[in-house]
Amino acid sequence: MPWLSPEATPHGSEYPAPRWKQVEWLSGFTGEAGDLVITMDHAGLWTDTRYFIQAINELQGSGIELHKTRVPEEVPIPQWLSSGVLDVEEDALPTVAIDGLCQGNAAVDAMVDAFGGEVNIVDVPDMLSPLWTGRPPVPSSPVMTLGDDQAGESREQKLRWMRKFLIRKGCDAILIPSLDEIAWILNVRGSDVEYNPVVVSYLLVTMDGAFWYVKKDGFPSGDQETSDSYYELSADGVRVLRYDEVSLMLAGLTEVGEVESVYVDPSTLNYNMFRTLLSGPLGNSVVTGPSPVPLRKAVKNAVEIDGMREAHLEDGIAMETFLYGLETRISAGEAVSEADAAASLDALRSRIPGYRGNSFKTISAYGPNAALPHYSTPESGSAVLRPEGLYLVDSGGQYIFGTTDITRTVPLGPCSPLEREDYTLVLKGHIDLAMAVFPKGTAGCQLDVLARNPLWRAKRNFGHGTGHGVGFFLCVHEGPQDIRQNFNSTPLLPGMITSDEPGIYREGLHGIRHENLLLCRDEGRNDFGQWLGFETLTLCHYDTSIIVAELLTDAERDWLNAYNASVYERLSPRLPSHIALWLKAKCRPV
Amino acid sequence: MPWLSPEATPHGSEYPAPRWKQVEWLSGFTGEAGDLVITMDHAGLWTDTRYFIQAINELQGSGIELHKTRVPEEVPIPQWLSSGVLDVEEDALPTVAIDGLCQGNAAVDAMVDAFGGEVNIVDVPDMLSPLWTGRPPVPSSPVMTLGDDQAGESREQKLRWMRKFLIRKGCDAILIPSLDEIAWILNVRGSDVEYNPVVVSYLLVTMDGAFWYVKKDGFPSGDQETSDSYYELSADGVRVLRYDEVSLMLAGLTEVGEVESVYVDPSTLNYNMFRTLLSGPLGNSVVTGPSPVPLRKAVKNAVEIDGMREAHLEDGIAMETFLYGLETRISAGEAVSEADAAASLDALRSRIPGYRGNSFKTISAYGPNAALPHYSTPESGSAVLRPEGLYLVDSGGQYIFGTTDITRTVPLGPCSPLEREDYTLVLKGHIDLAMAVFPKGTAGCQLDVLARNPLWRAKRNFGHGTGHGVGFFLCVHEGPQDIRQNFNSTPLLPGMITSDEPGIYREGLHGIRHENLLLCRDEGRNDFGQWLGFETLTLCHYDTSIIVAELLTDAERDWLNAYNASVYERLSPRLPSHIALWLKAKCRPV
Repeated sequence: MPWLSPEATPHGSEYPAPRWKQVEWLSGFTGEAGDLVITMDHAGLWTDTRYFIQAINELQGSGIELHKTRVPEEVPIPQWLSSGVLDVEEDALPTVAIDGLCQGNAAVDAMVDAFGGEVNIVDVPDMLSPLWTGRPPVPSSPVMTLGDDQAGESREQKLRWMRKFLIRKGCDAILIPSLDEIAWILNVRGSDVEYNPVVVSYLLVTMDGAFWYVKKDGFPSGDQETSDSYYELSADGVRVLRYDEVSLMLAGLTEVGEVESVYVDPSTLNYNMFRTLLSGPLGNSVVTGPSPVPLRKAVKNAVEIDGMREAHLEDGIAMETFLYGLETRISAGEAVSEADAAASLDALRSRIPGYRGNSFKTISAYGPNAALPHYSTPESGSAVLRPEGLYLVDSGGQYIFGTTDITRTVPLGPCSPLEREDYTLVLKGHIDLAMAVFPKGTAGCQLDVLARNPLWRAKRNFGHGTGHGVGFFLCVHEGPQDIRQNFNSTPLLPGMITSDEPGIYREGLHGIRHENLLLCRDEGRNDFGQWLGFETLTLCHYDTSIIVAELLTDAERDWLNAYNASVYERLSPRLPSHIALWLKAKCRPV
Repeated sequence: MPWLSPEATPHGSEYPAPRWKQVEWLSGFTGEAGDLVITMDHAGLWTDTRYFIQAINELQGSGIELHKTRVPEEVPIPQWLSSGVLDVEEDALPTVAIDGLCQGNAAVDAMVDAFGGEVNIVDVPDMLSPLWTGRPPVPSSPVMTLGDDQAGESREQKLRWMRKFLIRKGCDAILIPSLDEIAWILNVRGSDVEYNPVVVSYLLVTMDGAFWYVKKDGFPSGDQETSDSYYELSADGVRVLRYDEVSLMLAGLTEVGEVESVYVDPSTLNYNMFRTLLSGPLGNSVVTGPSPVPLRKAVKNAVEIDGMREAHLEDGIAMETFLYGLETRISAGEAVSEADAAASLDALRSRIPGYRGNSFKTISAYGPNAALPHYSTPESGSAVLRPEGLYLVDSGGQYIFGTTDITRTVPLGPCSPLEREDYTLVLKGHIDLAMAVFPKGTAGCQLDVLARNPLWRAKRNFGHGTGHGVGFFLCVHEGPQDIRQNFNSTPLLPGMITSDEPGIYREGLHGIRHENLLLCRDEGRNDFGQWLGFETLTLCHYDTSIIVAELLTDAERDWLNAYNASVYERLSPRLPSHIALWLKAKCRPV
């Protein structure tokens, strides 16, 4: 009997809480994406190009074989398992065991399809618990609430909007398993998942009630903030219930009022709970479809936008202070490692009032290390920065008033002509996207080439997306919009915040990425229709010293000079005078 | 009993032969797109933005009402018919009569869906014939064949490739109703349809035979070319049969050898024949899917590419001779009308050896008339060109060695600043797309913004696609690739020929379009992957006299100068010296 244990959680979030790091516990592999399959005579880890080197290192001696994905010769797990590798008795069906709580419906469907339906799927929720001594519990960090002045829209308004959606769909309840959707609807935040300020829970919204399945065994009675939050939510009519009770509710064993038809998004609800729902009393009246929350959540309201602007001002001060300090230390001959640099930046952010952690693990990468787009800076023994070549830092903060995500690549001394040319071409693409004006209805994939064209013209490219949605004091990666080489037809809308982060990666040489966050905004209407464009939220200068100026068009040069001037203007009043002076020199026009 | 009669043919081609101009015969409307619906108390024509003005004029006094499509308030025919406009007796189903030969399956499905299945569809093939005295017969023009030296690949090779496709699909026959697909497979051409050098027919390819349903009642026994063509095809194993016999074959009443499973593309097979097939002896073994021919046909072989290059050389000489003559006549004070100009260009093309007609009706439009992207130049009373402003000419030829499609917009004298700026911005977009380099796998919709960005930045736009595929001595519009604001994921491949035709249209003022044909070609491989780019096939200078030079980037200016220089270099040796001299001045670098 083979089985597979994916890097996923019951709530489908990007970063798993320690309890759900099943692949890491079993295999030692710490990459952010990887599925494990164990048969009677084989153990394999499936992961993509980003993690090949890491997987080879971390799997050494484990006997677990690396199966490469996102390569032409890829054999996905369902195809591999159904290709005759299983030793099955005559006339018996092969059996695949899964942890249905941590498995999506589409993945299981793909498995069944690969076997042409001739397979037994055995769902063993929390399969690892009997083996995993000391398995971490379901996380239970303090729960905070955001006031209407912080969130811009009350939970009552949001629940009312969801009920209107239910009426349109002819349903009288919706079950939400997605943690960032729940946080947005209820205006709650926590720290149950690293980098994602969410509360592990489920939410059922009915026509006259809201049932929040959130209380864990370890709920600390002395946690005043959480108690206050639960009290506030109860006062607003949200029933605060035990996390485990959700299964009973799905099975129809608890009282949630008159519910005759429930709406769920099977792309976020896990396999186990979807099956429970389908086999329960509501099984015949389940309506499936995409959740309405991600699109609404992606369009930030005025309060959220103001908060994001404030977050970028604070974040920009931290970034400039960091870059100043780094340059000063390097030129003074100090031995600064990648980890030292990351620590000093993290420390600067942590002093900002309202800071609630980083929005992801800081990528601090020098020279050839930056050629790994998802380089994980080791805590000890990381590379020491030298006064030459390029240093890349990709980082962001969570603040109670917003979320940031910024990448700067800076020269630490002399750079090669190729570094300078690559730096300039990536910056051209970054600027061309930032300058875009486009008709309402345009999707990110229809703009993506603007960020790539300067590189493509020189037959260079980068292998990741150009832009992802960013949450408001929520996940740094969110949908439904993006800017990449796909066919995602979601139009960009005023209020959406998306990153603009082209790059280039040359193995053994260097890596470059320039990233700002862009706020989509209304640019007015004329005879040709309704126009949209971008406001750059991020405030941190671009180093111009290594730019190959003749590669810039006039419009690009003007944008760059205006951007650096506005960075100086906005940040310098809040910087110590010696850093303001340093920044003034950095922001001199090209 | 209402009924609808669409502007379509049994073969789904773009231009209908006179026999199938049913909407025109019934309503007087001559636009290229329009569906007619007649109920017991209403007659309506559904057509899109391009044809509103034309429809209003042509429907005057007919009592037929215009229903607008491609507008926000659009009510499509199925929704309109199912909205209660029909007077149906209690307990009876509404009945919609259609000419199933001229109706696609998707359209009928949409109708049935709109009624929630509660509708009778009555198929009356050739419904109009009893009413339409003197209805033109199925066209029957001479049939020519292309030798392997002209087509680059023999019909045997193409049939062999189709049989391999059938094996992969587990079928042993494929029915092709598309005229350009048949022309490509059999290496035959005709002139059954205006502008499209095709032969009205059906083709059935089996594992050991090919059955061509083509002979019409009016088959002229004295037509030696057709007789020779039929002989050649028979010698190659193609059975040449009567056109009408296809229905007998579908009903299983004729001998086509062992056929157990037939493959059809329901997006091109008409409703009537698809139903006949489904209810016949093969009804249970019909496999549906897209035809493999369009993609293969779109990727031109070396002989076709050489032919296309030759066609553009000949066509360029005609274009330059035309533009020289036009400028000379206008500056001499001669009164040249739009129709005169079109006639002189058509005459120049018709003298080219191998000419087989135009590839579409020449659009010759002066001043505000050019603001209609699909302006149809009236045969009499067309506008007279004056020595000021812009003149647009969009035209193309069919030659036995290739097909052309070119638009030039030229100043006839002083132009306004807005005309000059629009002219330059459209040219920038045209050039930016022509200069594109992109990784293999990129689709046209992922490049489209390159042609729009210069306009968008100035909040201007155009409402049509940027590029369409072009056939080899076949239809000037062909798929499956295109370059437009859609989500068509078909990648551009080396050998595909696509137009590059951004524009701008200002009602009452002017219209501008710049169009060349681009051949997609291999640009080599490097560390970043496989690269593709474009070779411009069209040879005709761009007028630089009204360009706002400071709006061009250096790269755009260099491209323009190099293009004009190559036009002069390629064409001047074959032009009379006075025209060559004139062209030299036109091609002077900006």
